Amino acid sequence: MDFSYSPRVETLRREFSEFFTTHIVANAARHAAEAAAQCAAGKPWQPSTVVEELKAKAKEQGWWNLFLPHSTHAPQGLSNLEYAPLCEIMGRIPWSAEVFNCSAPDSGNMEVLQRYGSEAQQQRWLNPLLAGEIRSAFLMTEPDVASSDATTIQCSIRRDGDSYVINGRKWFSSGAGDPRCAVYIVMGKTNPDAPAHRQQSMILVPADTPGVQVRRPCTVFGYDDAPHGHMDITLDQVRVPADHILLGEGRGFEIAQGRLGPGRIHHCMRSIGLAEMALELLCRRVTTRIAFGRPLADYSIWHERIAESRCLIEQARLLTLKAADAMDKFGNKAARAEIAMIKVVAPNMAAKIIDWAIQAHGAAGVSADFPLAQAYAAARSLRLADGPDEVHRAAIAKLELARYTAPSE
Amino acid sequence: MDFSYSPRVETLRREFSEFFTTHIVANAARHAAEAAAQCAAGKPWQPSTVVEELKAKAKEQGWWNLFLPHSTHAPQGLSNLEYAPLCEIMGRIPWSAEVFNCSAPDSGNMEVLQRYGSEAQQQRWLNPLLAGEIRSAFLMTEPDVASSDATTIQCSIRRDGDSYVINGRKWFSSGAGDPRCAVYIVMGKTNPDAPAHRQQSMILVPADTPGVQVRRPCTVFGYDDAPHGHMDITLDQVRVPADHILLGEGRGFEIAQGRLGPGRIHHCMRSIGLAEMALELLCRRVTTRIAFGRPLADYSIWHERIAESRCLIEQARLLTLKAADAMDKFGNKAARAEIAMIKVVAPNMAAKIIDWAIQAHGAAGVSADFPLAQAYAAARSLRLADGPDEVHRAAIAKLELARYTAPSE
Amino acid sequence: MDFSYSPRVETLRREFSEFFTTHIVANAARHAAEAAAQCAAGKPWQPSTVVEELKAKAKEQGWWNLFLPHSTHAPQGLSNLEYAPLCEIMGRIPWSAEVFNCSAPDSGNMEVLQRYGSEAQQQRWLNPLLAGEIRSAFLMTEPDVASSDATTIQCSIRRDGDSYVINGRKWFSSGAGDPRCAVYIVMGKTNPDAPAHRQQSMILVPADTPGVQVRRPCTVFGYDDAPHGHMDITLDQVRVPADHILLGEGRGFEIAQGRLGPGRIHHCMRSIGLAEMALELLCRRVTTRIAFGRPLADYSIWHERIAESRCLIEQARLLTLKAADAMDKFGNKAARAEIAMIKVVAPNMAAKIIDWAIQAHGAAGVSADFPLAQAYAAARSLRLADGPDEVHRAAIAKLELARYTAPSE
Amino acid sequence: MDFSYSPRVETLRREFSEFFTTHIVANAARHAAEAAAQCAAGKPWQPSTVVEELKAKAKEQGWWNLFLPHSTHAPQGLSNLEYAPLCEIMGRIPWSAEVFNCSAPDSGNMEVLQRYGSEAQQQRWLNPLLAGEIRSAFLMTEPDVASSDATTIQCSIRRDGDSYVINGRKWFSSGAGDPRCAVYIVMGKTNPDAPAHRQQSMILVPADTPGVQVRRPCTVFGYDDAPHGHMDITLDQVRVPADHILLGEGRGFEIAQGRLGPGRIHHCMRSIGLAEMALELLCRRVTTRIAFGRPLADYSIWHERIAESRCLIEQARLLTLKAADAMDKFGNKAARAEIAMIKVVAPNMAAKIIDWAIQAHGAAGVSADFPLAQAYAAARSLRLADGPDEVHRAAIAKLELARYTAPSE
Repeated sequence: MDFSYSPRVETLRREFSEFFTTHIVANAARHAAEAAAQCAAGKPWQPSTVVEELKAKAKEQGWWNLFLPHSTHAPQGLSNLEYAPLCEIMGRIPWSAEVFNCSAPDSGNMEVLQRYGSEAQQQRWLNPLLAGEIRSAFLMTEPDVASSDATTIQCSIRRDGDSYVINGRKWFSSGAGDPRCAVYIVMGKTNPDAPAHRQQSMILVPADTPGVQVRRPCTVFGYDDAPHGHMDITLDQVRVPADHILLGEGRGFEIAQGRLGPGRIHHCMRSIGLAEMALELLCRRVTTRIAFGRPLADYSIWHERIAESRCLIEQARLLTLKAADAMDKFGNKAARAEIAMIKVVAPNMAAKIIDWAIQAHGAAGVSADFPLAQAYAAARSLRLADGPDEVHRAAIAKLELARYTAPSE
Repeated sequence: MDFSYSPRVETLRREFSEFFTTHIVANAARHAAEAAAQCAAGKPWQPSTVVEELKAKAKEQGWWNLFLPHSTHAPQGLSNLEYAPLCEIMGRIPWSAEVFNCSAPDSGNMEVLQRYGSEAQQQRWLNPLLAGEIRSAFLMTEPDVASSDATTIQCSIRRDGDSYVINGRKWFSSGAGDPRCAVYIVMGKTNPDAPAHRQQSMILVPADTPGVQVRRPCTVFGYDDAPHGHMDITLDQVRVPADHILLGEGRGFEIAQGRLGPGRIHHCMRSIGLAEMALELLCRRVTTRIAFGRPLADYSIWHERIAESRCLIEQARLLTLKAADAMDKFGNKAARAEIAMIKVVAPNMAAKIIDWAIQAHGAAGVSADFPLAQAYAAARSLRLADGPDEVHRAAIAKLELARYTAPSE
Repeated sequence: MDFSYSPRVETLRREFSEFFTTHIVANAARHAAEAAAQCAAGKPWQPSTVVEELKAKAKEQGWWNLFLPHSTHAPQGLSNLEYAPLCEIMGRIPWSAEVFNCSAPDSGNMEVLQRYGSEAQQQRWLNPLLAGEIRSAFLMTEPDVASSDATTIQCSIRRDGDSYVINGRKWFSSGAGDPRCAVYIVMGKTNPDAPAHRQQSMILVPADTPGVQVRRPCTVFGYDDAPHGHMDITLDQVRVPADHILLGEGRGFEIAQGRLGPGRIHHCMRSIGLAEMALELLCRRVTTRIAFGRPLADYSIWHERIAESRCLIEQARLLTLKAADAMDKFGNKAARAEIAMIKVVAPNMAAKIIDWAIQAHGAAGVSADFPLAQAYAAARSLRLADGPDEVHRAAIAKLELARYTAPSE
Repeated sequence: MDFSYSPRVETLRREFSEFFTTHIVANAARHAAEAAAQCAAGKPWQPSTVVEELKAKAKEQGWWNLFLPHSTHAPQGLSNLEYAPLCEIMGRIPWSAEVFNCSAPDSGNMEVLQRYGSEAQQQRWLNPLLAGEIRSAFLMTEPDVASSDATTIQCSIRRDGDSYVINGRKWFSSGAGDPRCAVYIVMGKTNPDAPAHRQQSMILVPADTPGVQVRRPCTVFGYDDAPHGHMDITLDQVRVPADHILLGEGRGFEIAQGRLGPGRIHHCMRSIGLAEMALELLCRRVTTRIAFGRPLADYSIWHERIAESRCLIEQARLLTLKAADAMDKFGNKAARAEIAMIKVVAPNMAAKIIDWAIQAHGAAGVSADFPLAQAYAAARSLRLADGPDEVHRAAIAKLELARYTAPSE
């Protein structure tokens, strides 16, 4: 047991932080200005030229596809425990992950294609994704059912000769707003009569297939998160060749399970970075803002919140890193309790701290002049994305109760 | 002591609810569609024709200026205790208050004009406001200081011959986005050398005065609340005649104090209506949504939250009504503890319940398909507007501690 | 609707407070000293002579059986709404309720006997109870089942000729530790095959009946609450005449329901009194205790807690008084939602405030030098007595959900 | 970074757990029975023969003085990171720590004597303490001042010829109730005029010195924690030889600081063990208790609490182990932020989980039939012992704010 970062990670953190400060932090205002200008010009969905410019720099310096585990694609691949601290740094400025080709849902989709894709699928979709040339989306959530219960999925994937025909409605399909988004991984049912977890399949659907209609962006507390977006998409008699299926019919649930682990580490580490950013803003604000003759930092109510924030962040980070370590050592399944725990802990922690930071900022906190309100929207939504807190807590409790009831444990 | 509504209030509630159901609830979809269409057409700041149409109906049937206390303007005026339950009903659908000419900040501004305005001021501004022909804004909050501490205000109102010249920057000036907004009440300092609470004055500034620049809407989370808006406004060498001052130089703090009481009752009762709306949506959702084979309403975690919500709402309503009763009987000053209490209690309660309702709705909860995310943004912001929670809690604590320390008590 | 106490209640409160200050507060130290002396002498279960002395005074001045509703026994009987504020005052010093013959479980038992007892039962037990000559206990809770679900009760009451024979084990039978405790009301099953809520009966059992064994006091945290006590009692072939049954076989559940309403008002109002006492101690402590050069009252964290306490107390009191008003006007059944709400709200509120008061007192807070730790134990236990929070929350939620699902509502 | 226990710790944990199960768990009922019998016999302050018997076994098998860092006294001494997991196991049954001669305050006192004691002091007091032949107490807290602010201490240590004369009152002196308690370490002021942190000294006072009066046990939520006890002690003209001073005059604050680090790790790890015990009891209870036709474990409210408990425990343990690791690597001072954090986090976490476990047990939870109520009292008190939460949170906040205000950062 050792709570210090390894020398390799220390070096990575230092060098990555330098890149981050020099290129991301320094360009944050330019990025915001470009987004505002595009929005004012009625083109909010146009990709950011700042991001494209920085992508080139990141790629050149090797800060690229960092999420990718050691493999032929990534001979120098990082373990989860090594990547996690870099992911935390990216989390401080949400748009930065794309600069390193490490943004969701692309990173998860790349992992799926790498682990489960056929050679043809990899050549057509994985390679341009790894190169950062196209974007992708993951069409899972449906408006009419509790999507955390995969058995309720209604989207139909029906075999018809050499093709599959897909019908359904998906929403909160993140990333599908981007004009460069070229492919969707769609979760649906190939066989509603199979056993509960063999009914689902995943299939690749080119975004320009006839019958695909991107209807509108779903907003998150008023934010459309353009140009990324969380889209409402109808699939009406969408026909794709049969070889677009991933892994095979009935394997959808299995792929979904495999996809989740690393993605949750990423989301949680980014949440921790977001919380650190919020705590920094909070501290800077209270030391400079005067009310009733004293800086806010003199009021003990802020000491309580700052201390509580620091305690929560430290603990959430340790638990997330422990989950990453367990995944590296024992695999996703053995680490499922830890993964469920961080999925609950990290977004709740981040939302709480961001909320305190908002409070310290007064009206400015809910405005667009600080990144806090949007950060809150992101953290709050993460308590619902990939399953609401309640589902994960039930899973944790089930494992805990099994220690006292299962005959074999 | 009697916890039943009076017969008069029972009748008012019944009749007002009928109007509300028939005209507001029934037109909610139309109102939303119009707003969406105007937004899509690039005209989000255009006033709603639906509201204008309903205003005519409300005026005709006497549901007009209900907030106005008994006076020559309102011979049948309601007491705070009588108006509060109607205000709660309006709170269920935030845009509805304007239909009854009861929306903030106009209602507060009308009260100020009625209580403190000269006859000329009343004729020019109060009458068209009472008729619902123009809108108004209240320019108090400044971005660079803790505005809850009135002594920090930086906006300058300088006497220059027969005029006052105003310089400063105000933001979160609610209502100033509306093209019909014709007048501002501006808080600023006429004499920075006077005793702390005699430095401030309030002055009327026509919105079209040269030097007034409405720079942009401030967003609340991702909402611009168009066409109402919370505007960022610069006042640069704005010159108005000396008779535009309200009540006299150095009376600004006094007017601000007098303005606050009823407005807080209104805000709080609307928060309670909002919370009731959220709880209703929550209940409807959990009874119809199935997860893992059972409706959510079968899971006891939802029983806990529903019960807690009901307990919180009932208590907040009673405290708000008690504050209203105290204001009616003993005046704003005697009721200041209760007013401070509800200012803390009601928005916190509403935010908590709305948050649970969001959780029950999954991704839909943060989207625009339900009014919950926007309601959350409103309730959360209300914990900052008119002074952050901390300022009100300090005031309550001061009164409480005084019971044990003051020599005369 | 009117939030001021009626003139009658104002007078009652003033006069009762005078008595309370003069006789209860002034004798609190003497009462504690006597209890300590008796404990040191190995006689903790001996009744207090201070209480007996004060009972005489209270009776003489008419502060006696105040809980009793208007009836032939109490021609000047108070309504729930009138009695509640007096009950709050008693709650400040827990042992004081007995002085006014208003302590649980005697008050509830007297009500049961008055409403459901035969004339013979009333003559034998009600009269000496009303006179304060004997004490009583209510034997409901059993260690082996979830007693909040009355259908699980195991104690058996079997008819045998002209007698009933009772077998079972009861615990947390409050008041049964007192040597003057002469009679038990025992809840048990006369017919396990009847419909769920017709299986139970209540029967009167003289404490000296053969087969009754008071085995030990149950402690609450570390308190035995002598001489009152919460006893663990075995009933082994306990035989009583058949006329000792209350109301008739199968009526136990019905009596239990009827008994609960007023008792909950009393418990909750006493909790509010307890919370007021804790808040007063907290305020007095923070104004006098110096840490790091300033009184604790200068630290804003205490402002937050004091303000939050005041808000919670005010709200809980209003809700409890509203429940009392509803019971007076519409009966216990119509007021069941409010009664369930206060049962959850008041003890939780009191426990939270007492806990803050403990924190303000440091080590002294958990000691016996202040009444806080024992008050905490009482408030915390009240979240379990008469059904745990979860059961009441489920009941509240059921009523709430029914508004949206039941066809007839 | 590595989140697995080292092989050495894994072995220690396995073997220690075996001893713990075989000797401690198996004798828990016997220990309780002996305590009850002694109490009934009026001899609660007599030491436990069960503990004495087990001490011999533990010593024989080398489970002795495990807390002692590597030194000449403990050539095989464990690091903080190695000892902590054993400390957690002991925490499950609070009386067990003494069996291993690892109980507070003796362990801390032994450390003080080892680090700061003269050879004569070590020979007279440290050796018999290490052998488990005598007990000791630490007299720090005073009833009349906020003892967390060491500058407020009132106890006077005055030089008089070859002696020191001590006058003062101390309370909550844990362990001083034990008849084997032979020596006190007393904190007092030798020079009230010295700089704030040079006024205090520590001195050794044999328990049988004339002028020492152990007046009474202070209770903790009704528990006297006999035979250990938390005593109220008067020191009246207590005279000890001058060589009884520790380290020298004015060094008291310095010793206190040095003493705290490891002790906090121990307290926190025991709190984690206590929380694990409570969670186990909770889980066992809900799987077996039936209410309204279903085991409590079927109600999702318990899933929420179990999951939350597991998340809180895991996080608190990681943070405590990280603090231990930091102390081992960088020393107590460098680890002061982490130490302050766990001092806040662990007792709060434990109190919360124990409270949920109480709730799951109904009335049994607050009784003496389960260890929960007493565990709650211990965890709650730990939020006050060694400084209240507020003091530690202020220290954490100060370090955090310094990152943004210190000129050199």
